[in-house]
Amino acid sequence: MKCEVVAVGTELLLGQIVDSNSAWIGEQLALVGIDSFFQTKVGDNLARMVEALELALSRSDAVIVTGGLGPTQDDITRDAIAKVMGVGLIRDEALVEKIRAMFGSRGRDMTDNNLRQADLPEGAMVNPVQPGTAPGLICEVDRGGPGPKVIYAVPGVPWEMKQQMTEWILPDLQSRAGITSVIGSRTLRTWGMSESGLAELLDDEISRLDQTGTATIAFLASGWEGMKVRITAKAPSEGEVTAVLSEEEVRVREIIGNVVFGVDDDTMESVVLDELRSRGLTLGLAESLTGGLISSRITSVAGCSDVFRGGVIPYDRRLKIEVLGASDMPAVSEQMAVEMAEGVCRVLGTDVGLAVTGVAGPQPHEGHDPGRVWIGISINGKTDSAHINFPYDRDRVRQFTCISALSFLRSRLIDGIPSD
Amino acid sequence: MKCEVVAVGTELLLGQIVDSNSAWIGEQLALVGIDSFFQTKVGDNLARMVEALELALSRSDAVIVTGGLGPTQDDITRDAIAKVMGVGLIRDEALVEKIRAMFGSRGRDMTDNNLRQADLPEGAMVNPVQPGTAPGLICEVDRGGPGPKVIYAVPGVPWEMKQQMTEWILPDLQSRAGITSVIGSRTLRTWGMSESGLAELLDDEISRLDQTGTATIAFLASGWEGMKVRITAKAPSEGEVTAVLSEEEVRVREIIGNVVFGVDDDTMESVVLDELRSRGLTLGLAESLTGGLISSRITSVAGCSDVFRGGVIPYDRRLKIEVLGASDMPAVSEQMAVEMAEGVCRVLGTDVGLAVTGVAGPQPHEGHDPGRVWIGISINGKTDSAHINFPYDRDRVRQFTCISALSFLRSRLIDGIPSD
Repeated sequence: MKCEVVAVGTELLLGQIVDSNSAWIGEQLALVGIDSFFQTKVGDNLARMVEALELALSRSDAVIVTGGLGPTQDDITRDAIAKVMGVGLIRDEALVEKIRAMFGSRGRDMTDNNLRQADLPEGAMVNPVQPGTAPGLICEVDRGGPGPKVIYAVPGVPWEMKQQMTEWILPDLQSRAGITSVIGSRTLRTWGMSESGLAELLDDEISRLDQTGTATIAFLASGWEGMKVRITAKAPSEGEVTAVLSEEEVRVREIIGNVVFGVDDDTMESVVLDELRSRGLTLGLAESLTGGLISSRITSVAGCSDVFRGGVIPYDRRLKIEVLGASDMPAVSEQMAVEMAEGVCRVLGTDVGLAVTGVAGPQPHEGHDPGRVWIGISINGKTDSAHINFPYDRDRVRQFTCISALSFLRSRLIDGIPSD
Repeated sequence: MKCEVVAVGTELLLGQIVDSNSAWIGEQLALVGIDSFFQTKVGDNLARMVEALELALSRSDAVIVTGGLGPTQDDITRDAIAKVMGVGLIRDEALVEKIRAMFGSRGRDMTDNNLRQADLPEGAMVNPVQPGTAPGLICEVDRGGPGPKVIYAVPGVPWEMKQQMTEWILPDLQSRAGITSVIGSRTLRTWGMSESGLAELLDDEISRLDQTGTATIAFLASGWEGMKVRITAKAPSEGEVTAVLSEEEVRVREIIGNVVFGVDDDTMESVVLDELRSRGLTLGLAESLTGGLISSRITSVAGCSDVFRGGVIPYDRRLKIEVLGASDMPAVSEQMAVEMAEGVCRVLGTDVGLAVTGVAGPQPHEGHDPGRVWIGISINGKTDSAHINFPYDRDRVRQFTCISALSFLRSRLIDGIPSD
């Protein structure tokens, strides 16, 4: 079973929008075991859309076309599919009423333009999953093979497309392909080790899996979010997939150790909040060179307020002294990072203080090159510190400092602060 | 002149990387006046790469292929092009020495793998612009037309690709297409008006430009970064393009007024810093629901420290009172926003205080629904406030609050705070 993706929209060709839909669809196809060898972008032009669809049908068993299902004049995916099917468009009155009801429930009137969204190629089925006003289509096309080929049309709006894909198209594709096995994956989030370092440690395990065929391991480099290690397994049922993934997760964790900070949707900030919460500790931040980045990540997690009390951004050196009560000394120093961490515990009344100070760049500061960073931690009155020299530009120095500081705090929460 | 883009890499099809290169190239081609009707993604597979290149050559005069120029076994763009040209690969010894020297200057030894990067299709020219170790290629292919067609191969690494495109391929394409005019564009950044609102205001001007043909206007919706209004002009020389753009910018600003906050690389934060700097004012922030987002945007601007002193993130209501000296009252209120702004001026010693408080969600707070936001401003002791109800999820409530607060501050710096 081969399936291609055709993304429709002149704005994609002009680079006004980056086509991330195709990438997401490609990933989902791979996960359910369907081959996808080509992805095409084409503008809102009937002849070229028909050309792209015909080509995709000639090479593959199924085509997923994204975009061009909206209500305006340049939304012509329905017309292109009708042409490929050799049929006309027919207005689906039941669909008209459904769309009208959706507008009504949002307190808006349906315009005549929206009627176009109910003009379907004769013989097309409507995707029963329709989160927005744009109906998805399932269109079977006979090309002389043993069974029909199929075109799935989904909206270009990412969340509508994803829901239609997940709830209908992927299962339908699997059933057409006669795939009865279930594929699942689990992603281990790691920080602190390079791809080649992880690959070396896991080399024997990957060879073993190559022979047993029970699972595969892939590495996804994710910049300042660290390296992701993805375990993928295929088995006859969801329960068996989960069992294989869990068993393999244990093996991988035994091999690569505590560079694993989380699983799947965990983030460094959600994990740090969990570690604090389970210990009944409150957190305060003192951010100089990151200027609020750590705090904005922490507060992106809903429900953080039971642990996170707040922060101080003493960007000016005088504020480190005046607001946090640090001694009068250079800003870029180990002692300053430690006194900032202690100060934030005192001023905000928290159990834990995390502080960063340093040089984001591009100019040197206090005689230090850009990328020089000090991290200070105070946990229940005990302190620790670390320093790093990042060979990066301003943005990356700030981002890498952010995750490095959170990772340092995580390790000290778990292992405790060593005694001198 | 038609030019297609072929992006090579199995990781693109699997969705491990989003292909943003093609989008960028598409935008550049449009800007220099070259049509691009198709973009294709194909994996690291020789037969399918040849198929994709042949198809692109059959439809277009030129093809830009990105990726697959590295030193590893799966980098086979050179092989695919040789096959399309009907020639073999020949090692270019001068190129070997050039690559060896590049490694040497970085203190590293060249591996034997890197020799592959000097194996070129017979008759290929090397792109003289070579910022990294991967040489770009220019390969002419005779397909029976009046002139040769051309394949440009560029590395998949974005900054290397962009430099080769800008400095060599775009001018070469223009010269092959006989395009002697220069195209330039200018982007006006706006905040506070919808696309349909802007389109309505500019309707007459767009019609006028349609007739004169001197310039075009396009709208780029950019979420919480606002609407971008892009003016594009074509003229025989750079000087004339600049003159047309400047004249048109004046017209557009006259029509849409002060929703324009900046031009091209300006951001809301850089503009606010400029407004503060020109008035000799210092800034302090008090961020509750945005939790450091505003501060992290401000401090992303290099050189902000002459204006930005720092901030307080009183996430816990008690800190609004204990650290900023606000009265004991509900957190989500106009008075709290104003007292936080006044408090931050006092505690951090700044001329200007900007404060936000409200409900990010997903849960209601103090009886208010998510999306309820208060903004407070203090400028030299005079205060003002604003409130907004955002119908968004947590992330967007925070992001829209961030730019709304900065925009409110910008307008009050320019217009002053109205007297009661």
